[in-house]
Amino acid sequence: EVVPTCERYAVRRLPFARLADGDVAFFERLMPGRVVTSEEEVQPFNVDWLKSVRGCSQLVLKPQTTAEVSQVLRYCHERNLAVNPQGGNTGLVGGSVPVFDEIILSTALMNQIISFDKVSGILVCQAGCVLERLNEYLEEQGFIMPLDLGAKGSCHIGGNVATNAGGLRLLRYGSLRGTVLGLEVVLADGSALDCLTSLRKDNTGYDLKQLFIGSEGTLGVITAVSILCPQKPKAVNLAFLGCQSFAKVLETFTTCRAMLGEILSAYEFMDEKCMELVERHLKLSSPVTDSPFYVLIETSGSNSTHDEEKLNNFLEQAMASGLVTDGTVATDDKKIKVLWGLRERITEALTHEGYVYKYDISLPVGKLYDLVTDMRARLGQSAKNVVGYGHLGDGNLHLNITAESYSHSLLDAIEPFVYEWTARCNGSISAEHGLGFKKKQFIHYSKPREAVVLMQQFKAMLDPKGILNPYKTLPSAP
Amino acid sequence: EVVPTCERYAVRRLPFARLADGDVAFFERLMPGRVVTSEEEVQPFNVDWLKSVRGCSQLVLKPQTTAEVSQVLRYCHERNLAVNPQGGNTGLVGGSVPVFDEIILSTALMNQIISFDKVSGILVCQAGCVLERLNEYLEEQGFIMPLDLGAKGSCHIGGNVATNAGGLRLLRYGSLRGTVLGLEVVLADGSALDCLTSLRKDNTGYDLKQLFIGSEGTLGVITAVSILCPQKPKAVNLAFLGCQSFAKVLETFTTCRAMLGEILSAYEFMDEKCMELVERHLKLSSPVTDSPFYVLIETSGSNSTHDEEKLNNFLEQAMASGLVTDGTVATDDKKIKVLWGLRERITEALTHEGYVYKYDISLPVGKLYDLVTDMRARLGQSAKNVVGYGHLGDGNLHLNITAESYSHSLLDAIEPFVYEWTARCNGSISAEHGLGFKKKQFIHYSKPREAVVLMQQFKAMLDPKGILNPYKTLPSAP
Repeated sequence: EVVPTCERYAVRRLPFARLADGDVAFFERLMPGRVVTSEEEVQPFNVDWLKSVRGCSQLVLKPQTTAEVSQVLRYCHERNLAVNPQGGNTGLVGGSVPVFDEIILSTALMNQIISFDKVSGILVCQAGCVLERLNEYLEEQGFIMPLDLGAKGSCHIGGNVATNAGGLRLLRYGSLRGTVLGLEVVLADGSALDCLTSLRKDNTGYDLKQLFIGSEGTLGVITAVSILCPQKPKAVNLAFLGCQSFAKVLETFTTCRAMLGEILSAYEFMDEKCMELVERHLKLSSPVTDSPFYVLIETSGSNSTHDEEKLNNFLEQAMASGLVTDGTVATDDKKIKVLWGLRERITEALTHEGYVYKYDISLPVGKLYDLVTDMRARLGQSAKNVVGYGHLGDGNLHLNITAESYSHSLLDAIEPFVYEWTARCNGSISAEHGLGFKKKQFIHYSKPREAVVLMQQFKAMLDPKGILNPYKTLPSAP
Repeated sequence: EVVPTCERYAVRRLPFARLADGDVAFFERLMPGRVVTSEEEVQPFNVDWLKSVRGCSQLVLKPQTTAEVSQVLRYCHERNLAVNPQGGNTGLVGGSVPVFDEIILSTALMNQIISFDKVSGILVCQAGCVLERLNEYLEEQGFIMPLDLGAKGSCHIGGNVATNAGGLRLLRYGSLRGTVLGLEVVLADGSALDCLTSLRKDNTGYDLKQLFIGSEGTLGVITAVSILCPQKPKAVNLAFLGCQSFAKVLETFTTCRAMLGEILSAYEFMDEKCMELVERHLKLSSPVTDSPFYVLIETSGSNSTHDEEKLNNFLEQAMASGLVTDGTVATDDKKIKVLWGLRERITEALTHEGYVYKYDISLPVGKLYDLVTDMRARLGQSAKNVVGYGHLGDGNLHLNITAESYSHSLLDAIEPFVYEWTARCNGSISAEHGLGFKKKQFIHYSKPREAVVLMQQFKAMLDPKGILNPYKTLPSAP
């Protein structure tokens, strides 16, 4: 049983209205059959995927259209009812579930593709489309989504955009801030903002949509997305390699970046602890001999002969110079999927360990693993495991610490140490996961006071009553 | 002699304070020797590059540091003096020069490179660095700037960011919204906002810097930029081709995108009128036989053998299928530069024609040239030339109409027709040039009313006195 967030973190409920019978009746009239009130059915929407936070909402609403979202928010705004927008509920910082009794506004039924243009590669769809479904749809037409992440089977594109999800393809296709071309958003008072353009370039005024990208549902509810999709690569190759030190992981990166150039599409790393955990908990097996570090390199290109030649040249050099001690290469879809699984399923393997303290840090790439080493030394036997993996090519470390169960004292040993360490290197305390509920009090480690004040002004302007995803993203007053 | 903007457009001056002797004395104390007051020296800062708009400022300030910019703005805010931030003054919509007597705040002396990291490819520099100088600096280290444009020899990176410049490399490296990682900005009241991070990923709160990208100096003055730079390609190839119809230009695009894939770095087009003008006014000569349309295709990659093979395969197919009737290929720097000159110098050639009515439109790519054809038919003999060229790969048309001199009646024949036409196709009336002074009243053709209202609220919040680049970007009250 997950401890309610308000108890574990001793949060005070803000003075929003409480849900009344008349409210439920209103919603039932608005969207009959799509109003969930039974405790059992509401429960999964109250708890995050990690089972680390838990709200006590009594109501889930499942609109199908932007007009319905608009009507819901207009009503809640009027009534001063707090709302928790929810996509696939795969977030890792407690941003996707209520803290108290916020009404859950789920995008689960907003799953229609609106249009796809094969010449421009621009997809327009509702916010509740599942990432993997979109990718499958696009692959049939010779395109792919510009982002990919472990949670693809359940995360919604609206949630991806609301959290500015990074993931596995950022190295190649850039961030959502470049690929998202337009958004439709419903504001806190129910008014709809239509910035759903399908143009690669548009410099007519301020780019309002950027404010909603990464705002975690605190400034508006994203209802539809227009996104630029790259062509499906004709050839994909994967190399899974073992390295004897982190220094060699780094040198392997600069070497492969120079030799693979434009076809490099992912450079991921994981330490030996991660491999142990996926082997133990998920019964996966390592394709290479035991090494302190493993590296996954993906190439995506338009000519398999050229790509394989580039990859082989690189591998020869990496082996000859001792950067890499063992490795395997995959060119067929099945083996590629198996190898990616080792990296993608680390998060899942970790959940089998008990409670997981998750940190998602941006650092200058050379210092990336020092944080793991320092943390391991600091915690000693008080942690079960301290592991590091992540998107090395983007300077993004996932530092995870496991224990049998949650403990205040272990948390105190980790925080604020991890944030102070990061701030000393001018890193970011949240590279891609966002701040949500769990990290919002630490924003000051990565943002100056003036910036936070400005963010609070934007929040006050766009959501004066503060009903949208309260207790999230911005620090509460001291 | 350029007609003053306030006369030609009958604008009313807003009630800002007028410059007094005491103000000049204050600035002289703050930055001795970097305060320009002589009419002759101020003149070039008052007139835009196109000689289409003219302000009547009496003062140019040339700060060297962010602290100085801060002090200038704090003073101007206090005194209610309007300020026109100016970079290289290469803007095409009248955004970079004053309309009345705004104080010109030039970034010309803020030209220091702050840092460059060869592992991450992240450059941090002051806003006044000239784009071409930055590119030269990076090339020595094996990198390039992610943007390139015709005005590179004089435009400032701060101005590029403030206008969200697109240009010739956007097809490959994406927009500045993805490549700009951090900004330092001084707000209207003189307070500095330090969001100058050098991290590829950072999801700690709202992405404030995005609001300043493309805001044309109306929300703050950009003083420093952190930007992600790609590796310098080892091989660059260029093909300059002739096509017999626009339909073939389009088919050539989809063919080359599929065959060149990840090495395609530019797909530009120009019509025969453009070629005539660069031949006539600049004495350049066409490298291919006369054709209704010309296409410039650039590849950038890491392996010259592979790249040439891909390009040759594509060219063989394009020739064999009659998509292209004549063409030339360049692999050496000198010839590449000559061929790029034909496309890059169209803007310059046009200025020799007299007055130029410039339109920078985003459209679904299939309809891109219809607007040129329709406009040519509409204007008949009343225009000297109606030409079309641009970044076809990005759906971006540059429509230019020339006449001996400016005339209200010709303008009335063009506008709002060109905007209505664009709006019917859900296009953008400014793809990359911005709105500045000349286009601000037309924002409604590309943005809904609610979006413009929100923009006005942001402006009011960040610059309550409206002193920053007044009369620009947002429409004045009706």
